[in-house]
Amino acid sequence: MDDLLERLRAALPAEAVITDPDVMVSYGRDMASFCAAGLPAVVVLPRTVEQVQAVMRTATALRVPVVPQGARTGLSGAANASDGCIVLSLVKMDRILEINPVDRIAVVEPGVINAVLSRAAHEHGLDYPPDPSSWESCTIGGNIGTASGGLCCVKYGVTAEYVLGLDVVLADGRLLTTGRRTAKGVAGYDLTRLFVGSEGSLGIVVKAVLGLRPRPPAQLVLAAEFDSAAAACDAVCAIMERGHTPSLLELMDGTTVRAVNAMANMGLPDTTEALLLAAFDTADPAADLAAVGELCRAAGASEVVPADDAAESELLLQARRLALPALETVRTATMIDDVCVPRSRLGAMIEGTAAIADKHGLTIGVCAHAGDGNTHPVVCFDHQDADESRRALESFDEIMALGLELGGTITGEHGVGTLKKEWLARELGPVGLELQRGIKRTFDPLNLLNPGKLF
Amino acid sequence: MDDLLERLRAALPAEAVITDPDVMVSYGRDMASFCAAGLPAVVVLPRTVEQVQAVMRTATALRVPVVPQGARTGLSGAANASDGCIVLSLVKMDRILEINPVDRIAVVEPGVINAVLSRAAHEHGLDYPPDPSSWESCTIGGNIGTASGGLCCVKYGVTAEYVLGLDVVLADGRLLTTGRRTAKGVAGYDLTRLFVGSEGSLGIVVKAVLGLRPRPPAQLVLAAEFDSAAAACDAVCAIMERGHTPSLLELMDGTTVRAVNAMANMGLPDTTEALLLAAFDTADPAADLAAVGELCRAAGASEVVPADDAAESELLLQARRLALPALETVRTATMIDDVCVPRSRLGAMIEGTAAIADKHGLTIGVCAHAGDGNTHPVVCFDHQDADESRRALESFDEIMALGLELGGTITGEHGVGTLKKEWLARELGPVGLELQRGIKRTFDPLNLLNPGKLF
Ligand SMILES: Cc1cc2nc3c(=O)[nH]c(=O)nc-3n(C[C@H](O)[C@H](O)[C@H](O)COP(=O)(O)OP(=O)(O)OC[C@H]3O[C@@H](n4cnc5c(N)ncnc54)[C@H](O)[C@@H]3O)c2cc1C
Ligand SMILES: Cc1cc2nc3c(=O)[nH]c(=O)nc-3n(C[C@H](O)[C@H](O)[C@H](O)COP(=O)(O)OP(=O)(O)OC[C@H]3O[C@@H](n4cnc5c(N)ncnc54)[C@H](O)[C@@H]3O)c2cc1C
Repeated sequence: MDDLLERLRAALPAEAVITDPDVMVSYGRDMASFCAAGLPAVVVLPRTVEQVQAVMRTATALRVPVVPQGARTGLSGAANASDGCIVLSLVKMDRILEINPVDRIAVVEPGVINAVLSRAAHEHGLDYPPDPSSWESCTIGGNIGTASGGLCCVKYGVTAEYVLGLDVVLADGRLLTTGRRTAKGVAGYDLTRLFVGSEGSLGIVVKAVLGLRPRPPAQLVLAAEFDSAAAACDAVCAIMERGHTPSLLELMDGTTVRAVNAMANMGLPDTTEALLLAAFDTADPAADLAAVGELCRAAGASEVVPADDAAESELLLQARRLALPALETVRTATMIDDVCVPRSRLGAMIEGTAAIADKHGLTIGVCAHAGDGNTHPVVCFDHQDADESRRALESFDEIMALGLELGGTITGEHGVGTLKKEWLARELGPVGLELQRGIKRTFDPLNLLNPGKLF
Repeated sequence: MDDLLERLRAALPAEAVITDPDVMVSYGRDMASFCAAGLPAVVVLPRTVEQVQAVMRTATALRVPVVPQGARTGLSGAANASDGCIVLSLVKMDRILEINPVDRIAVVEPGVINAVLSRAAHEHGLDYPPDPSSWESCTIGGNIGTASGGLCCVKYGVTAEYVLGLDVVLADGRLLTTGRRTAKGVAGYDLTRLFVGSEGSLGIVVKAVLGLRPRPPAQLVLAAEFDSAAAACDAVCAIMERGHTPSLLELMDGTTVRAVNAMANMGLPDTTEALLLAAFDTADPAADLAAVGELCRAAGASEVVPADDAAESELLLQARRLALPALETVRTATMIDDVCVPRSRLGAMIEGTAAIADKHGLTIGVCAHAGDGNTHPVVCFDHQDADESRRALESFDEIMALGLELGGTITGEHGVGTLKKEWLARELGPVGLELQRGIKRTFDPLNLLNPGKLF
């Protein structure tokens, strides 16, 4: 232990090595309730690649586990400290090194905040699409660690699609460069993609080459109210089947709408059983909204409200933004699930979730990246009520079982962490799990990188 | 040997096990000249997953190497037989199992021809974008094996972006299912992506879930002539920097233009030093062509010819389609390189290639997926002239060295195979290579799957 601190202090500036227990506690966990977290031996905040390498060399020499951290906005416990570990926070490595409008790439350090990069790209007429709702606080390193999604993914895809190349410090401190700065490249196995979504278990991302896109026109939003979630899901299927490419297609169920109403008076009728939001950033968004509005009406929408301009659009999106905070006020705690099903099964998923809520006598609000079939059932419960907490956990599991049954995955974007370890094994099966573990061993034979996460 | 054939004949129908030496020779190699190929012990043509599993179990039991093959249109020797191997051709597994317009996916067997899938998707108003020029003959399994690209990648991306899930028979015959049918998913390491571009070295793809897109409007093409390749590359940079999203942006240098002229009288002026083709499949392609035409003129284009309709567009693309066949008539043989550089370095790449041609007294025509920075320098030589062949090989290598120097990769889409093994090691470096080999060992500990390819 003394040896550990001594070595770290020799390699890093004094202020980059934190051992104050109060401060260390604040680095203990991400935003997932229910996930165990321990007390680190030390928190380090390197500013350079060399410092990260020194930390990993020390960790390997002394066999101390390392937990990489971004902004700790994760929702699966993937960034939670374990007892006696080194917490390796990348938040101080936050420089945008380059934005190149001809090559349409950005080169960044891992601690850059997602929204900071987006705004910097905008200055060049470019856009970094992946937009998790936590975008004002989460880091690019964390986005890469979790392969995060967001609202615009239905049109523009997820983080994985934008990571072209990486610099990674391996468990033993060696530096690996993967991928490329080019638009294409097929030289060997795609190690870059292997790191995306690996939750800090294969190496420490210290630099990323990211793809950018031309900034699209401002999107125009339409809201449609339905008497049933099933009807709203029919509309989603019709919209996608007809070949539309919305830049956003979000759904809130009646429970969520009522929670939002209770929190902020948005004037949504309390009888609405589903609110669908569709947006287009095409050359003629009004025409697209008109077409999609027709499909909503045909699917049974009781009201269809297309925005006329950006301000009205923003107002319509407010309700969606308030969904999580509003559901958090229902009881004392929430567990956010993240099941993704083929979009043709979205209706079955939402109806099944309602049945699970009924069975357990719980409030479960669902908001969904509907265009992707990615639902976020939010289980509301009183964390001081042992029985309610137990039922919450049971319903959480039943939701994942339902997702798998419908041909889906237990996690569309939030990742596995410690929260869904058993479920990962179930989804992958023994052959898949064995290969995943083999890959882990190849990169981290001593099992020092974020041990206990994923599997 | 007798044991091998006996076991294979017990597991597969008689016509699926070929030992006729004349027929076997025809399965010996892909389309890359210069790459060594051996004589297989047997060629098998399974029709079911179970048969593939039986082949791999036999191969593992008897320690016989297996070379998976699609249509053998590859350009790197990656499908070439080795002496005594089992050639495992997937061409008889050619069923499209499902096309789902709501989920926008296709589920296919690996032997489905790329163009057959495209046309089937079109019937549902959908599109499978990856379009290698070999699309009328190459297979989806081969496209996945090589992570192939094509003309439309500048807008729609490469094969990797469309592979959502896979069924893979492992070296020991076990069946692995990776990925998903859903739009998103982050459960564990991305094994699906690891298989894409793995050149048959990690497992046999027996089923693929592919993403589809709504079919875009027909594209309109513009041709622009330049007095220098540098000016054409300036135009490419300007087009991309201004935020245009062409559905195709191809360049042919003067050597290629003259070869095409000599083969088919296309009426292109023999003095043209570069022909740029740009296409748009947007809502108002004529407006986009006008804007891009202006940028071409500003970069020095001597002539700009926008097509008025689909027929004229098709005519303009003819020249591009004839590029390879035309260059093949220059001497008796060609070697096609595949270097991809950041598009801002495209001009330097093409000028450098011309200098290499000069130095060696060779004809090297360049056509390029210019929007991606992906050049195909075609080295023309007389394969019966030993000195010319030597110079051809030298220039081929110098082109790759130049690509790496310019921050590029040795292969944008054709892969490594046996052709670029030494160069892969150079591009990846020792740390990357060690990890790649570790992954190979995890999946194929006996080194039976396409040994001798990649590294
Ligand atoms: C209000 C709210 C809304 C959210 N909305 C979304 C959403 O819409 N979509 C979505 O996908 N997620 C969402 N999330 C979840 C979360 O924001 C994302 O998972 C995000 O990507 C985490 O980034 P972070 O910087 O906070 O990473 P952390 O939580 O600190 O870490 C996440 C994982 O990445 C690893 N890691 C971090 N940095 C590195 C690095 N440099 N090298 C290697 N590994 C690293 C960690 O070890 C951990 O495993 C939301 C969370 C909140 C609280
Ligand atoms: C005229 C011409 C034009 C071309 N244009 C392009 C182009 O524009 N873009 C481009 O990217 N390429 C192009 N190519 C190269 C080639 O067509 C592609 O690489 C194509 O993807 C190969 O497909 P195939 O079915 O012929 O595969 P093969 O050549 O038979 O095999 C390719 C690799 O995939 C492996 N493989 C095949 N099937 C499987 C399977 N089921 N499971 C596991 N591994 C498998 C093989 O072992 C081998 O390593 C062109 C080739 C020619 C001849």
